[in-house]
Amino acid sequence: MNSETIQLACELIQRQSVTPKDEGCQPLIADRLSQCGFDIEHMRIEDVDNLWAVHGEQREPFLVFAGHTDVVPAGDADQWRFPPFQATIDAGMLYGRGAADMKGSVAAFVVATERFIRDYPNHKGRLGYLITSDEEGDAYHGTDAVMQELTRRGEQIDWALVGEPSSTEQLGDVIKNGRRGSMLGYLTVKGVQGHVAYPHLAKNPVHLAAPAIEALSKEVWDQGNEFFPATSFQISNIKAGTGATNVIPGSAEIMFSFRFSTEVTAEQLQQRVAELLDQFDFEYELNFELKGLPFLTERGQLVEAAIAAVKSTTGREPELSTAGGTSDGRFIAPTGAQVLELGPLNKTIHQVDECVSVDDLNTLTEVYYQLMVNLLA
Amino acid sequence: MNSETIQLACELIQRQSVTPKDEGCQPLIADRLSQCGFDIEHMRIEDVDNLWAVHGEQREPFLVFAGHTDVVPAGDADQWRFPPFQATIDAGMLYGRGAADMKGSVAAFVVATERFIRDYPNHKGRLGYLITSDEEGDAYHGTDAVMQELTRRGEQIDWALVGEPSSTEQLGDVIKNGRRGSMLGYLTVKGVQGHVAYPHLAKNPVHLAAPAIEALSKEVWDQGNEFFPATSFQISNIKAGTGATNVIPGSAEIMFSFRFSTEVTAEQLQQRVAELLDQFDFEYELNFELKGLPFLTERGQLVEAAIAAVKSTTGREPELSTAGGTSDGRFIAPTGAQVLELGPLNKTIHQVDECVSVDDLNTLTEVYYQLMVNLLA
Ligand SMILES: [Zn+2]
Ligand SMILES: [Zn+2]
Repeated sequence: MNSETIQLACELIQRQSVTPKDEGCQPLIADRLSQCGFDIEHMRIEDVDNLWAVHGEQREPFLVFAGHTDVVPAGDADQWRFPPFQATIDAGMLYGRGAADMKGSVAAFVVATERFIRDYPNHKGRLGYLITSDEEGDAYHGTDAVMQELTRRGEQIDWALVGEPSSTEQLGDVIKNGRRGSMLGYLTVKGVQGHVAYPHLAKNPVHLAAPAIEALSKEVWDQGNEFFPATSFQISNIKAGTGATNVIPGSAEIMFSFRFSTEVTAEQLQQRVAELLDQFDFEYELNFELKGLPFLTERGQLVEAAIAAVKSTTGREPELSTAGGTSDGRFIAPTGAQVLELGPLNKTIHQVDECVSVDDLNTLTEVYYQLMVNLLA
Repeated sequence: MNSETIQLACELIQRQSVTPKDEGCQPLIADRLSQCGFDIEHMRIEDVDNLWAVHGEQREPFLVFAGHTDVVPAGDADQWRFPPFQATIDAGMLYGRGAADMKGSVAAFVVATERFIRDYPNHKGRLGYLITSDEEGDAYHGTDAVMQELTRRGEQIDWALVGEPSSTEQLGDVIKNGRRGSMLGYLTVKGVQGHVAYPHLAKNPVHLAAPAIEALSKEVWDQGNEFFPATSFQISNIKAGTGATNVIPGSAEIMFSFRFSTEVTAEQLQQRVAELLDQFDFEYELNFELKGLPFLTERGQLVEAAIAAVKSTTGREPELSTAGGTSDGRFIAPTGAQVLELGPLNKTIHQVDECVSVDDLNTLTEVYYQLMVNLLA
C-alpha cells in the first residue's frame, strides 16, 4: 500500500502537464487544500494556470510553498524504461516525467500540510501555496505575474520554500539559499558577404569574430565570493552561412549566456562585453535580456528552520549552495522574502527515466512537516 | 533589326534552362551547327544534356568551344527590372538570366562559326563544341563526364576556348589563362553538451574552436607566384547549438573553402590544416572534398591567337589572369589541352538584372571569328 504522498505524486504524474499545461493538477491540489480550510484562488493569466491558496488567521509571519505543476517534454517515450506519464514504481523508485521536478515535492507538501493543519489547526501566521504551470517555459505568466499581482495587493511573503530538487547525493544534503543571476546576450558580428573566390571584396564575419569569441571565453569576470561561484560565460549558439559552400557569409549570429554572482552587476557585464568587442575591428550589434538577478538568503529564521527540519528528520547536516540553474525563486526574492529551495535529488531531472526514491518522498513529507512546525507551530 | 547574335541570344534566354535543365537550347544550337556541316552527338548523362559537335577533315589541330546552356535560378523575379526569361533590350543592354553567363557567348560563337565555315569551308584541323547543361550545378554529369568519354575514345583537344564572362571593365580586357585549385573542408569540433548552469560538466566546442579558427584564418598558406594569387582560406558556414539558450552545444560544424595556387598541393593543405588543429586541445573530425586542381595555360599558340583577336577587333591589350571562380576549364585542362576563358563582362552574373551590352556581343562575335581565323584558317 503506497503512502498518501506516493499516491498523490502518481496522480499528478499521470496528468500530462507538459509546459505550460496544467491538465487538472492544480484543481486536484486545490481540492485537497480546500478541504483543510484554505482559501483558493485560481489565477489564469493568458495560457498559464496559477494557484494561490492561503490558510491562517494571523497576517504574519507568512510562509509560502512555491512550486510548479508543468513538466518538460518527455522526449522520445520509447527510450524510457516505463511510459513517462504512467507513474511506475520499480525497485523502490517512482518513475515518470515530473517525479523529481517537481510533482513529488508538491505531493509531499500537500500531504505534510494536511497533517500540519490537523495537528495545529490554529497555527501562527499564514501558510500559502503559489503553484504555477509555467516554470519550465517562458515563465512570463507564471510566478512573476502572480508576484506582481500580490505586490499590488500589498501582500508580503516572509518565507518562501521552493520545492525544486536541490539534493545531489542524499535527500537534504543541499539547500539552495540563492541563485546566480542569469542574462542572455545576442551578438551579431557584421561582415561583408561575397564570393569565396574574391575574398578581397568581402569581410568574413567568422574570421572577424573568432578572436573576440576567444577573448570572451577566456575573460575572468569575477572570482565569485563566499556565497557564489565565479560568473560564467557560455556561447549557446552560433550561426553563419546559408549552407552554400562558395559564399562568404555577411554576418555571424552568436547567442551567449551569463550566470553571474553578486560581485558584478548586469550593467557591468554588458559594458564589459561591449568594451571587449570594441577592441576588435568589426561592426556589431549587441543586445541583452536579463532573465533574473542574483539573490541570496542569508542565515536567519528560514535557513535555521530548514536546516533543523532536515537534521531532525534525516540526521544530515545540509550544505547551503547557490550553484545550478535558475528557479522561480528569482521572482519572489526581490520582494524581500527569504527564499530557499529544498527538494529531492536532481540527478535525473529533465532526462529520460526521471525518477525519485519512494523513501525519499516519504522522508521529504516529514521534512516539510517539521519545517511548518518549526516556523508556524 | 537585331543582329543574328542578339536574335539567337534572345531565343536562348527565353528558354528557362535553370540548372541542370537545357529546355531545348542544345537542339537549337545543334540545328544551326548541323546546317553548317557539323557532326552532332547528344550525350545525355543522367539528368544532364550535353552536346558534342565536330566539323573538319584534318584530325589536328583541334579547337573546341566549351560552354553551358544552364543558368542559375532567377531568384525573386519581382526584383528584376524586366522579367528574367523575357530577353529585353533597353538602352543598348540585353537583360535576362544567362545574358552574360553564358548564353550571349554561345550565341556569339555559333554566329561566328557560321560565318567562318562559310568563309573557310576547308579550314585546317577540326572545330568542336562541348556544351553542357550542368555547369552551374553539381557538374558531375556535364563537362567532366564528357571529357572522360572523349578520353576513352582517344580524342585530344589542343585548344579549348571557354566562353565564360572573363571581362571586367571593357570587353576583352581580361583573358583567364588558368584557375586556382578549389577544395572544400568539413570540420567538426567535438565538445561535451551540457547545461549552461553547469559549465564544469561540459566542454564548449565554440570556445574550443575560436582560437583554431583564428589561427586558420591568419595562416599564410603561400605567397602565390607569377601566375597565381596567394592561396586563400575562407569559412563559409559555422553552426553550433540547437537554438536553446541554456544548452552548451555538443559540437560545432564548420565548412571552409580553399582556393589554391600551384605553390601548394591539395595534400599539403590537408596536412597543414590537420597539423594546425592538432596544436589545440580538442577532438575533431576533418574531411576534404577536392573540387578542382589548379591549371595554367602559358603563352603559346592559343594565348597569342586570342590576344591578337582581341587586339585587332577592339584595339585593347588583354591582361592574363587566373583569379576568380572555377569553371569547366578545370575538367579540360588535365587532358593536356591549352585552355582559355574569354567572354563578356562579368559584373552582373548570378545577380538580379543580369545583362550584357548589345555592342559587346556583336564585337565578341567578331573576336571569336578572328580567333578561328588565327588558328584554323
Ligand atoms: Zn522545476
Ligand atoms: Zn558560366
